[in-house]
Amino acid sequence: MVNWFGRAVRRIRGGTRGRVDAPRIRARSASNLESTKVDLHELVPDTMTFLGRAAYVQLMLFENLSRVVTTAPTIEAKSAMSDVASAALTKYHGLVREIERQGGQPTEVMKPFAGEVDQFQRMTQGHDWHESVTTCYLAGGFLNDFFSRLSAGLPQAQAARVSAILDEDSGEATVVKQLLAVTRDNPRLAARLALWGRRLVGDTMLIARRTLRAGDDVGTDDERLEPVFTELIAAHTRRMDALGLTA
Amino acid sequence: MVNWFGRAVRRIRGGTRGRVDAPRIRARSASNLESTKVDLHELVPDTMTFLGRAAYVQLMLFENLSRVVTTAPTIEAKSAMSDVASAALTKYHGLVREIERQGGQPTEVMKPFAGEVDQFQRMTQGHDWHESVTTCYLAGGFLNDFFSRLSAGLPQAQAARVSAILDEDSGEATVVKQLLAVTRDNPRLAARLALWGRRLVGDTMLIARRTLRAGDDVGTDDERLEPVFTELIAAHTRRMDALGLTA
Repeated sequence: MVNWFGRAVRRIRGGTRGRVDAPRIRARSASNLESTKVDLHELVPDTMTFLGRAAYVQLMLFENLSRVVTTAPTIEAKSAMSDVASAALTKYHGLVREIERQGGQPTEVMKPFAGEVDQFQRMTQGHDWHESVTTCYLAGGFLNDFFSRLSAGLPQAQAARVSAILDEDSGEATVVKQLLAVTRDNPRLAARLALWGRRLVGDTMLIARRTLRAGDDVGTDDERLEPVFTELIAAHTRRMDALGLTA
Repeated sequence: MVNWFGRAVRRIRGGTRGRVDAPRIRARSASNLESTKVDLHELVPDTMTFLGRAAYVQLMLFENLSRVVTTAPTIEAKSAMSDVASAALTKYHGLVREIERQGGQPTEVMKPFAGEVDQFQRMTQGHDWHESVTTCYLAGGFLNDFFSRLSAGLPQAQAARVSAILDEDSGEATVVKQLLAVTRDNPRLAARLALWGRRLVGDTMLIARRTLRAGDDVGTDDERLEPVFTELIAAHTRRMDALGLTA
């Protein structure tokens, strides 16, 4: 059986730039690119499931960022990253308010997803400050992108409110500045972070995929999902590029 | 030499409720209570020093709170404490904006105080989640109080803006709720937290005192400082009371 999702992870993890840029090596990918319009309504889970996952993910991103604030090597980095942490917290609180608005109890709504998100957090924590910041940047960027795009599939009125919350500035430029300041003159560190980034994206795609309604029957829906992830991976590659790293 | 400050710490640390309530055992204390009006203008350092310390202290309080969010035993506690962390972060950002408004570069203005505040943070970190939350509650409450009161001694226009930032709700009620939920049925834990609270207040008073202009000549200015700290200690005792703990 052809498993696009697994293939994409392998492509990203082991890939050279050339391979990422050459989806034509698989005929099916090429044909899918022609029918890129995906019906997100079919993929998005019910609103509460969406909100519960999205909120708990933002809380996790905030926790990662606040650890980065605490362990920052300079006051300048500490202060800059606190702005980014604040942005994640604002999104989290926005999503919590939306859960309440829909009549949900936020803790209960988030609870079913805590286990897997906590596990993702442990696996992607990083071994030092720079890897942790890279996680904030790449996993945070990917997941922000993912939930934002997916929110378009929610019922109309909710979709507008939720995407307004998720599309607020995440402070990505600030994170890039912090990372560039250290990678620019340290090719060894840059190479290590590139490896870390490749490892990360696989785990990040897996946790994102579990959000989709199709996530229940892994394999069968891969063709339907491919166009969604193709865009997200392109954005991931741009994020790596911004650091001068090869995805 | 009579050292009120050291005495106050001993009184708090070793004290029974009775002793705390009986300042009359020292004649000097009683006479000072009559002239409780302190000229804060004499005690407050220059504006940038005040703002630099106050901002870095808020950043430290935020870090403590975000660690408590990350390590919270339940999602409910995690979510509740994230509100409290958000409040500290808002104060921090308000103070940073005020530094910029006065023409300062926040990182530079905070830098001189980072060492001692970081050391305070390490010393008061707590050995488990409940001690850490207690630190957030008691040290956070004390320092918020302290900087808020002291800000009245800043030049008038600044005083109004700075105290508006510092007097925003810190989420103390949320923290009390979290702690009461666990201490109410656990007298052993309550006793341990009471001890921790007594240890904390000494270190907290010391770091507060270093902010005062009089802090340079320890000892000589103790009489001048006593009325300031008397009010802060009374507030600390009320905080302990709210948990059903004896200060």
